[in-house]
Amino acid sequence: MIMGQVKGVNLGGWLVLEKWMAPQLFAGTDAEDEYYLPQALSKDVYEARMMMHRANFITEADFLRIASLGINTVRLPVPYFIFGDRQPFLGGIDTLDNAFNWAEKYGLQILLDLHTAPGSQNGFDNGGLTGVVTWAQQPEEVDFELSVLTRLAERYGQRQGLYGIEALNEPATQRAFDMVSNRYQAKEPAMAANNQAISFEFLYEFYTRVYAALRPILADDKIIMFHDGFDLTKWADFFTAHEFKNVVMDTHHYLMLAELAIGGSSYENYEQAMAVIGDNIAKLDAVVPVVVGEWSLFNSMALGQDSQGGVNPTQAEFKDEKGDDRASEADLRQIYNRLWELQIKTWGNASVGYFYWSYKMNIDTVNDSAWYGWDSWSLDRAMNKQWATTL
Amino acid sequence: MIMGQVKGVNLGGWLVLEKWMAPQLFAGTDAEDEYYLPQALSKDVYEARMMMHRANFITEADFLRIASLGINTVRLPVPYFIFGDRQPFLGGIDTLDNAFNWAEKYGLQILLDLHTAPGSQNGFDNGGLTGVVTWAQQPEEVDFELSVLTRLAERYGQRQGLYGIEALNEPATQRAFDMVSNRYQAKEPAMAANNQAISFEFLYEFYTRVYAALRPILADDKIIMFHDGFDLTKWADFFTAHEFKNVVMDTHHYLMLAELAIGGSSYENYEQAMAVIGDNIAKLDAVVPVVVGEWSLFNSMALGQDSQGGVNPTQAEFKDEKGDDRASEADLRQIYNRLWELQIKTWGNASVGYFYWSYKMNIDTVNDSAWYGWDSWSLDRAMNKQWATTL
Repeated sequence: MIMGQVKGVNLGGWLVLEKWMAPQLFAGTDAEDEYYLPQALSKDVYEARMMMHRANFITEADFLRIASLGINTVRLPVPYFIFGDRQPFLGGIDTLDNAFNWAEKYGLQILLDLHTAPGSQNGFDNGGLTGVVTWAQQPEEVDFELSVLTRLAERYGQRQGLYGIEALNEPATQRAFDMVSNRYQAKEPAMAANNQAISFEFLYEFYTRVYAALRPILADDKIIMFHDGFDLTKWADFFTAHEFKNVVMDTHHYLMLAELAIGGSSYENYEQAMAVIGDNIAKLDAVVPVVVGEWSLFNSMALGQDSQGGVNPTQAEFKDEKGDDRASEADLRQIYNRLWELQIKTWGNASVGYFYWSYKMNIDTVNDSAWYGWDSWSLDRAMNKQWATTL
Repeated sequence: MIMGQVKGVNLGGWLVLEKWMAPQLFAGTDAEDEYYLPQALSKDVYEARMMMHRANFITEADFLRIASLGINTVRLPVPYFIFGDRQPFLGGIDTLDNAFNWAEKYGLQILLDLHTAPGSQNGFDNGGLTGVVTWAQQPEEVDFELSVLTRLAERYGQRQGLYGIEALNEPATQRAFDMVSNRYQAKEPAMAANNQAISFEFLYEFYTRVYAALRPILADDKIIMFHDGFDLTKWADFFTAHEFKNVVMDTHHYLMLAELAIGGSSYENYEQAMAVIGDNIAKLDAVVPVVVGEWSLFNSMALGQDSQGGVNPTQAEFKDEKGDDRASEADLRQIYNRLWELQIKTWGNASVGYFYWSYKMNIDTVNDSAWYGWDSWSLDRAMNKQWATTL
C-alpha cells in the first residue's frame, strides 16, 4: 500500500441510485429510493430507464476525464444486488466489469464500496430503503452481504484496477440512527417495526468476519476497508487487538453536518469543527491508516441559507428564500476555495488520502432554482467553476 | 456580427439521434436511424429511452464544461419535429428552452441547425431516414420545414443566447447524392422510389425564402446560415445577386472524405487537400463570410486502417485488422496534434470561425475494440487526451 497517495472521487449515484443525484430517473413516480423504483414503474420502463442510466451517467469518457484531473482512485458504490440474484433489482456486474477495464486503461484504481444491504444498514435514501434499519437483525442477510463481498473479491481480487474492497458503507450506530429516525420516514411503517441502531460490537464482529473471508482471496497489496460507524474514537482498541494486514479505516465528514453539531455556518465554526475532526483522525491514524472516504464543498454559507444538514429539493419543499440576492460568482469562488483548502489540509492527517463526494450530479441549477448551490456536490463542476483548486 | 470569433463545437447526437454516437439508445433493435426507432420499441420504452437520453447525453454540466474549454458557440442540431407536431416523434422544445437558459448562464451562444427534414434532404443516417432523399420533391414538406424555422425564430429570435439559425443541414446535391446512393440502402425501397438529388437552383430559391421569412423576425445581429450543398464554388453569384444582411455560408470538411477524394492517408495528402479547401474557402469568403460548421480529427492514418470514408461499427462488420499492432499513445498524439493544427490553420481562411464535430460520443473503445479510434470524434475526449491543442 502506498500511503498518502489516494486523491480520489466517489462515483456516487451510478450503480447505487440516489434520487437527488439523478432525479430524472425517478421522474413521474412517487418513489424516493432504489427500493421503490421498480414498484413505481412497469418492468419494461424500469429496465429501460436503468439501462439508459447505467450507460450514460458514468462512461468511458468520465474515467478519462477523472484521470486527466489528476485523480488516481475512484470509490465506487455498489448495491447488494450487483450479481443479479435479488429480484426485482437488476444486476450490474457487466457494467462493473467494463468499469475495471476503463480504470486499467486510464491508470485509475477502484475501491469497491458495498453501499447497501437488504433491509438497510442505515435507513438513508442512499442505503436504498429509506427509514428502515433492519439488516443487522437478520443473520441470513448478514451472511448474504458477506457472500457479495466474497464474490467481488473472487472476481476482481487480482486485478490491477482494484484498490480494495470496503465492507459496508455508513452503518448507523446509535447517534446516526437517532438522526435517521428523526429525519426519514419508512414508506411502509411495518418494514421499520424492527429498526435498531447497529452496535459497535456487531461491527467489530462483522468486520472481523469480512477480513477473515477476504484476505485469503485478495492479492496481498489490496486494501480491506471499514467504515467507522460515524465515530473515530471507537476503533483504536479493535485494531490494536487484531493483526490485520493492509486494512484502512474510512471516515466521512461533511460541512453540512459540522454546521448542525457546532451551530451555524462561518469560517470560524468550520475551522473549529475541522480542528476537532483533524485531531480525531490523527489519533486513530497512529493506530490504523485512515482515509476520508466522503467529503464535499457543499455548505450553508455558500448556499446563503441553512441547508438543515443537507435536506434537499427531492426530500422537502425547498424554500428559495434568497431569490436573486445570492452571493456573486467571485464571492462563491472565494468561499469554496477557502473551504476546499481548509478540508484538504485537514485530510492531511489521514495518511491514506481522501475521496470527494461526488464526481457527478445530474441536476439543473439554472432551470430549477431549488437546486441552487447543490452543484457544489459535483467535483466535475467544482473544477470547471474553479471552486476546487489543486487536488 | 463579430467576425472570426466563433470557436465552436457541435452538440451532435443529442436532439437529433445518430446511432453511432449513442448506440445504447438503439440497443436490442434493428433500427438504424431515428425514423425507425419508435417502430422498433413499444411506446413506453421508446419514450423512456428518449427521456433518459435527452436528460443525460447533454446537461447543464456540459454547457459549463464547454465554456470552460474556451468555446463560445455551440451548433445545436434540431429535428424537424422539435415542436412535437409530427407523431410518433417526441417534441423537444422544453429541452431546447433549458439549453438556452444554460447557454446564457455560462456565456455561450447557440446556432440552431435544422438538421433533418420530413422525407430527408440527404439520406444520411444523420438526416433521420437512411437512404431516402425525397423532401425537396414534396412542396408541402418544404413549406413545413420553413414553418419550423419561422417558429424557432419567433421563439428565440431576441434571445441573447441565440447566435443564429441555419436553414438546413447538408442538402445532398448531385455529388453527395451519388455517394449516398452507393452507401446507404433505404430499409423500405418504396420510400426511396422518388429519390432525387437536390439542385442548386432549388437551394437558391429555398434559401431566399428562408431569408425573407426569418430576417424580419430575428434581431438584426442574429445570423442566418446556409449550408453550401457540398460545393463552395456554386455560391459567389448567388450572394452577389442578393443584398443579404448577416448571412453566413456553412461548409463541412472531413479528413475521412478528403482521403477518398485524394486517395490515401498521409500528411502530404492531408496538406494537399487542405490547400485546395483553404483556397475555395478564401475565394468565397471574399463574397460572403464563411464558417466551417463541421470538421473532425478522425482520420485513417491515426486509425491505422482505411475507414472507407467513415464506415463505422454500427453500419458494417468492422474488421479489427490491426489488433494490438496499434500506434503508441505518443504517436497518436503526434498525428492528432499535427492534423489539428493543419485544420485550425486552414479554417483561418473562414472569417467567421469553426465548429468541431462533435462534443460527445458515448461509445466504449475499451470494451468494444471495433470502436478503436472513433473517440477522436469527441472534442471532450480529444481535449482530455491532449489530441486537440489550443482552440
